[in-house]
This record gives sequence, structure tokens and C-alpha cells, in this order.
Amino acid sequence: MALYIDYADEIQRLILDAALTPCERLPSVREVSRRRGLSVSTVLQAYRLLEARGLVEARPRSGYYVSPRNRADPRQPDRPVTTMHAMPSGVPVDRGGLIHEVLEATRSRDLVPMGSAFPDPRLFPLARLRRSIYRGLQHVDAHQSVEDLSPGNAALRRQIAVRYHLDGQHVDPDEIVITNGALEALNLCLQAVTRPGDTVLIESPTFYGALQSIERLGRRAIELPIDPVRGLDPDRLKRQLAVHRPAACWLMPTFQNPTGALVPAAAKQAIVELLAAHEVPLIEDDAYAELYYGARRPPPARVFDRTGNILHCGSFSKSLAPGYRIGWAMPGRYVSCVLRYKLESTLAASLPAQVGIADYLRGTHYDTHLTTLREQLRRRRDGLIDLVRTHFPAGVEFTRPEGGYVMWLRLPQGISARRLYHQALAAGVGIAPGVLFGCDDTFDDHIRLNYGHPSPAALERGIVRLAGILTEQSE
Amino acid sequence: MALYIDYADEIQRLILDAALTPCERLPSVREVSRRRGLSVSTVLQAYRLLEARGLVEARPRSGYYVSPRNRADPRQPDRPVTTMHAMPSGVPVDRGGLIHEVLEATRSRDLVPMGSAFPDPRLFPLARLRRSIYRGLQHVDAHQSVEDLSPGNAALRRQIAVRYHLDGQHVDPDEIVITNGALEALNLCLQAVTRPGDTVLIESPTFYGALQSIERLGRRAIELPIDPVRGLDPDRLKRQLAVHRPAACWLMPTFQNPTGALVPAAAKQAIVELLAAHEVPLIEDDAYAELYYGARRPPPARVFDRTGNILHCGSFSKSLAPGYRIGWAMPGRYVSCVLRYKLESTLAASLPAQVGIADYLRGTHYDTHLTTLREQLRRRRDGLIDLVRTHFPAGVEFTRPEGGYVMWLRLPQGISARRLYHQALAAGVGIAPGVLFGCDDTFDDHIRLNYGHPSPAALERGIVRLAGILTEQSE
Repeated sequence: MALYIDYADEIQRLILDAALTPCERLPSVREVSRRRGLSVSTVLQAYRLLEARGLVEARPRSGYYVSPRNRADPRQPDRPVTTMHAMPSGVPVDRGGLIHEVLEATRSRDLVPMGSAFPDPRLFPLARLRRSIYRGLQHVDAHQSVEDLSPGNAALRRQIAVRYHLDGQHVDPDEIVITNGALEALNLCLQAVTRPGDTVLIESPTFYGALQSIERLGRRAIELPIDPVRGLDPDRLKRQLAVHRPAACWLMPTFQNPTGALVPAAAKQAIVELLAAHEVPLIEDDAYAELYYGARRPPPARVFDRTGNILHCGSFSKSLAPGYRIGWAMPGRYVSCVLRYKLESTLAASLPAQVGIADYLRGTHYDTHLTTLREQLRRRRDGLIDLVRTHFPAGVEFTRPEGGYVMWLRLPQGISARRLYHQALAAGVGIAPGVLFGCDDTFDDHIRLNYGHPSPAALERGIVRLAGILTEQSE
Repeated sequence: MALYIDYADEIQRLILDAALTPCERLPSVREVSRRRGLSVSTVLQAYRLLEARGLVEARPRSGYYVSPRNRADPRQPDRPVTTMHAMPSGVPVDRGGLIHEVLEATRSRDLVPMGSAFPDPRLFPLARLRRSIYRGLQHVDAHQSVEDLSPGNAALRRQIAVRYHLDGQHVDPDEIVITNGALEALNLCLQAVTRPGDTVLIESPTFYGALQSIERLGRRAIELPIDPVRGLDPDRLKRQLAVHRPAACWLMPTFQNPTGALVPAAAKQAIVELLAAHEVPLIEDDAYAELYYGARRPPPARVFDRTGNILHCGSFSKSLAPGYRIGWAMPGRYVSCVLRYKLESTLAASLPAQVGIADYLRGTHYDTHLTTLREQLRRRRDGLIDLVRTHFPAGVEFTRPEGGYVMWLRLPQGISARRLYHQALAAGVGIAPGVLFGCDDTFDDHIRLNYGHPSPAALERGIVRLAGILTEQSE
């Protein structure tokens, strides 16, 4: 076959793969000729063949461009939402696959995003952050770009320490390791205090990220049932500690995901003291802490720590800048190990996001933003409660979180959350089925609803549709 | 003790910890009062006490500020370079500690940075990248900030695919997973194809990151000695594959770190075929690929892959944007596993860095920049070779890399690289001692010199000082 046909086929493949997108300029004939070692006339022939096939078009004095005719709707996600198959209830769950599916589904804008893990992105100060990055990077000299390795940008660590200070906690910036979101912080902390085969106490239900990390890293989970309002009961923990010898405990004592539970301060203190007495390190996921609806930020477990036994993890992903992937670990006496693992596994967090957030935090914008965000989330919670009370059939129970943006809801007897998930999806509504948050099918009678992501109008639409499905099934 | 003294002491601690820096504004009296539940007069008394202590100063109608008097030199790194202790040769090496120390030392600007792992940051188009981020983020709508999860920003993946295409390789953007630098890509790939206890074939000497990952994740390394010019010999690999049953092979066939070795294309092909025949996945670290001095980019092992057996990893950290932490994995048939592990461990790469690089790549700047960068690095290599020939004592052997920016150098007999490292550091010169790149002391007669980071003048100064130490010891 002639060389130019081969080359045209190759470009065609790039267009079909969407590596070259509609209206994008093709590489110049001369450039291709130089780099691929093809003659100019061969490349030109290839481009003309593609033109004949209707895939590209020539623009005078400008070059060749991918034809716009198949222009995709730019609002469509690049990857299709996984096709859903009806799944009979009772079949063992591939939790990993299901989580992936739920995450993928949140990318579709046609869906009411009550299954999402993030709040409404329109609630974030993205334009201001963009200017902060621009300004912040202006003050970064060249050397900083190779020096700002972990533990991370010094100005950002100072700003984080000052924020803890304002909430009455002393934090030395050198205790902070900046990470790629709280998820990386939690993963590093888990690796710092446990080894493969070790057992880890977790809440039940729990953040699925904890289950995934424990599984992927070869640790074993022991689930402690929690109260959906008051979280983990210290007495229950005490009984478990008398039986098991866990290597670590991983908890989310403030606005727990998925329940929204808040462990009261006295119970937090009791948990911290129990774990210290048993020498079991506590990994504290505090990612939702800034999203409190009350007058003050609830104290994290960390404030009761006297022995450096708590590995506290925070994040800006839920409260300021989702997508920037900036979180942090304050790993107490394990700081050097966490820092070393961070350096070994991802070296450092991304510089533009770090300096941008550091710049943003220097002003008073963050507190103003948080005040508005908390108020919005509280109102949406109240709105959701009204909607559920109005539309859902009897027998539904739900939590009333004091912070964060997720509600944990128990379905009427006999209804499978997994089946409901698929039915809801078919009706354009995303929800998170309860089985994501446990090791087995225990929570197939629960769902987690994100009320912070959908607009109030979408939330109403979603709840009405869900209610329709539920009512049909309850009859 | 009076409340205001307690509070003043607390602020003092923040100032001494540098959480509050010179000239920074203290939180407003009213804000502190509200959040800490202290009366306005208590906070005011505390601030006045700090003023009396000389730590803060009041500015009329503006508030209280940390005193500038102890203003630190802003060019100083925040963390002191670890104090070095003379270490007798022959003591077992704490490689992890030593790597950490060498990394820390590169942050000191007083040191000639020949021990660094990065090229000269002044060689990068940081101002253009900053504008690209600003422009790129302008086109990001709110939803994208929560949708652009892994595999990563679609425009960036397309740009990467197009660059491979220009070098004659077909890549589907959907095969690409954007990561937090090549280091994360390599770590995810290792986890995707091996389990704890498995053996992994690596080069000897090798990139220390490979040793660290293998150790941290509970795998075992088998070192294959390589030629410092032609890299791994396929015949040696063949003999090893007849003996061992490794779960994976981790190589850097192009401009290997630390030797700079380039495996010839035919040998790459032989290696790929051997590994495919033995069903051993190949993790290919191709982070230095763009830094070739010849007419064309050397083909990676990946081009010889017929079975999806190669997990290829690339990066912008060495060639465009150190500190942005943007790399990628093209994991062949393991793509879904790598994607899943990425989602589970760090969720996604940072959005501003992704859209910034995607915007930057749309123009022709990158190729212009790379042409200049390659030429600079090639010249610095030639400069280093001249300097070594002129100043170093006889008996020194060294490589002449065809790309990248590191030289591997064998010291005259009887000289310990570890001891030299400490002596050089005392003389203001950073080098990477050979022991970092192996499991034992084998390479204590080698050093790695980074000729791409120091300016030509600093390089000369560094080599003359090193030569002085070496000559003294050889006598």
C-alpha cells in the first residue's frame, strides 16, 4: 500500500479516537515530514485523501483542520456512562465496580447528582482562585519549582496552621504534610501505622475509600456499627479493643460519610483516651469539618490527643477547591514516616494549586465564602427533609446532619437500594446505594443522598422521581 | 494565670514557629473574640503584651502585624539542611535516610546542585505556563472541577496522544491515565501487576525510587547489572528469566537514571519479546525521553509491544514543569486496574496544572522550548566532560549520555563515594553517592553528577572543589 494511505489511515484513527478533535489544526505538513521522515508530498497526499474522505478540511494559508461536522456536544462527558444492567438483588456485589460506576455516573450532567461525593461546584469561588493562582505563581521564583517538595509549600502550611489556631488548636506548620487531597493523606497514614495482614477498626457504615484502601493494601477491616446521629459509641469501641488487637482505627468523627453523624465532644475524648491506652493509632478523617451549621467548628478528636497518637487528615476539596486536589496530614508522632512515604510515592503536591490556595487564604474571602456555603448547605438540608417528608412513603427513616451535605436514609422494608439505584438511574436520578459503605449487603436497605450538589430545583425533581419509584414498589 | 497572657503565649508560639511570618497581619481582634469566645478586651490586652515583647506592632487604623525586625531572608529555605555527621565508610547505609538527606540538600541554594534530581529550573517556561493556567482555567466551567476525575483532563490526554503520534506511535487518549508525576504512575503500575512478596527485576544501578517502592510495598527486588552505556543486555535478561519467575520487570531503557544509558532499539525489541514470551509485564520509565540530543526521540520499548504487556510511564517534570507534578501512565492491558488504583489512592491529578499544560501544548512553544533545552543540556554535558578531564585525577571513568542530564562516574580506587559526599557537602557541593542506586554498598565507588541543574559557572566551581578533595585523597 502507498505510504500516504498508511499515513492517512493513522490520522483517521486519531480523529476517530478523538485524539484530534473537531476544528483542531492538524500538525503542519513540514513538521510531520521532518519528524516522521516522510516526504512533504506524501504528507500532503495523505491530508488530501483525508479531505476527500470528509474528515479534514483545508483552510487557505492556515493549514488542515479536522472537520467540524461531527462536532460533539462539548457538554457531553468524554467517556460514556457505563451501561447499566438490571441486577437481581442478592447477587454478591462487586463493590469496586459499583463505586466506579457511581463515580462515573456523577460525570453525566443529565443526571440529578444525588449520588455525587462533592457539593455543587457552582458554590465555589473558582474565579477568585484562578486569580490567586496567577498572583501566587508570580511570586514563585524558578528555584522554588524544584524546591517546594514535600512537606509542601511553606506559606500554605502556615495558613493552615493559622486556621487551626483560630479554632483554638495549636499546630506547628512543620507537623503538616500537604497531600493530593485528603484521600492521599489517609492512604499514607494507613501505610505509616499498619502492615499487610494487620487489622483496622472502621465505622459501619463507612466511607468506601477506607474499605478500598484497606483491601488494596492487604489490610483487614473490622467494622464497628455506629449510631447514624452520634457516631461511634466509646463503650462499643472499648468492648472491641478488649477482643481484637487492631493495628489502627480509621474514623470520621465529624459529619461522617455516609451518615452525617457527629460524635459528641465528650465521646471523642473518651475514644481518644481509649485508643491511647491501647496504643492504637487513630486515623482521623476530618475532611468535612469546615462545613458545620452551628456557631463553631466541632473540635476534632485531635484536640484531645496528648501522645501524638492521632493522624489527622484535612482537605480543601469539599469546602473550597474540588479538583485542585489539596489536602493535608498532621500525623502526630508519625510525621516523618508519612513525609517519607509521600516523597516516595508522589513526591509533592502540585505547585500551582498550592500557591493559589495559599494566596487565597491570605485574605478574608475564605471565611466569607464558608459562611455562605454553610448557609446554602443547611438550607438545602432543610429543603431535602421537607421533600422527603412530603413525597416519600411511610417507613422511610433519615438523618438530619449538623454539617456536611449527605443524608443517610433507610428505605421501607423489602426495598433493595441496589435495585433502586438502577431504577433511579434509568429515571435520570443518581443516588449512592448503601452497599458501597459496607463489606457485605448489610446496608442494601439504605441510600446516601447528596443534597449539596443538585440545585434546589433538581433536588425536588429527583426526590419526586425517587418517591414515584418507591411508592410503586411499596404498593 | 490571666487569660490574656495565655493567649499572648499562644500567638508567640505561632510567631516562633513561623506560622505567622514577619509583617503578616494578626487575625482581627473582633474575629478572634468571636471564634475563641474571648472578650474583646482580653484579645486586645494579649496583643498589647506581644507589642511590649517586641513581637508585634500596631498600625493605626489597620490592626496588629508581626514585627519585621527578625525578617528572615526570603531566599533561605524554610527547613534547615540536615546537619551532616562524618560517617565512617563500611557502616551499613540507611538508604532511605540518605536519599532524604540528598533531596533536602538540593533545597539549599548555597550548594552547587550536582546531587539534584531536576534540571536547572531557569530553563523552564514558567511565565508562559502561568499564563496558560490562567487561560486554561477560564474555560473550565464549574462542573468540570468535580467531573475531571481520573483518567484526567481530556484535552491534556489528547495533546499527549498527539505528541506520541508525531513520534510515530499510535496512542488512544483513553489508554492514558494522568498521574501526580511519573513517580505515581510507576507506583500504580507496580501495584497493578504485582502482589506483596512478588519479585521484581530491576536494573543495577537503578533509580532509587524503584527500590523505595518495591521495599515499601513489600515486593522483593532482583538486580540485573547493566552496562552504563547500552543498558540492560537482553542475553543477561534471558538467563535471569530462565532462573527466576519474576512478577514484573521495571526498567528505564532510555537515558537511564543514574547512568544515562540508552538501550539500542534492537535490544529494546529483544527485551520486549523476551518478557512477552515469559508473560512478565514491563514497567517502562520513560521520564527522560524528551531530553534526547540526537535528531529524533529514541523509540521507547512500548513501540515493540504487541500484547499490551508494557506499562509505559511519562512525565512533564523533567522537560517542562517541575513542581506541577503531571505525569501519565499508558498501562496497556492493565489500564482499568491502574485507573481504579489511581481513583482509590489519590482520586485525580490537580486541575490547574492539567489545564495549564494542556493549554500550553496547543501552541508550538513546547517544541521550541525543548529544542533550546536539549541544546543547553548537551552543551553542559560537553562542558562537564571537559572539566572532568581537566581537573579530576587519573583513574576516573565516566559516561557520555546521549540525553537527560546525569553522568555516572567511577571514582579512583579506594575512594568511598559516601565519604566524598559528606566532604563535598562541607565544601558546598552536592553530589549523589552511588549507594543510593543499589541494594547494598556495590556502588560506593560511583557518584551521579547532575550537569543540568548548576549553571555552567557553578558546575566549574563544583568540579574544581570536588577535584581538590579527590586529589588530596588519591595522594
